[in-house]
Amino acid sequence: MKAIVKVQLKPGVLDPQGSAITGALQALGYDEVLDVRQGKIIELDLQGTDHVLAKQRVSEMCGELLANTVIERFSVDIID
Amino acid sequence: MKAIVKVQLKPGVLDPQGSAITGALQALGYDEVLDVRQGKIIELDLQGTDHVLAKQRVSEMCGELLANTVIERFSVDIID
Repeated sequence: MKAIVKVQLKPGVLDPQGSAITGALQALGYDEVLDVRQGKIIELDLQGTDHVLAKQRVSEMCGELLANTVIERFSVDIID
Repeated sequence: MKAIVKVQLKPGVLDPQGSAITGALQALGYDEVLDVRQGKIIELDLQGTDHVLAKQRVSEMCGELLANTVIERFSVDIID
């Protein structure tokens, strides 16, 4: 079973890395780029087959380790 | 228009950050975690309405700046 976790900065939180990418893309001639936000995608291989339990456990992992919930929001998807 | 780019290490490429997360989660008691791979998610705000052109341009951006195609693979999704 796999879990896909997406961790992204909450709206309004400054994203210096995203700003750097925006500037670099515009400097390369990609003028259509208005704004860039960068986040993390974390793919977990999990033992077990209970999707509901897995989603709950992975959400706990996010709160405890994978995301900083003060400034970041996360989503959890369980696949196959 | 928004583009969502996912950049992940190719299979077989060592992921020390992922290994560190695996170890930390197991140390916290999440024994069901077998393996973790970490990647980037990049959200771009784009001017224009042509989805086909946007996908082509963002794929170019990935090859040029956003991904290291020697060790990373990427996917591009255009939304709204």
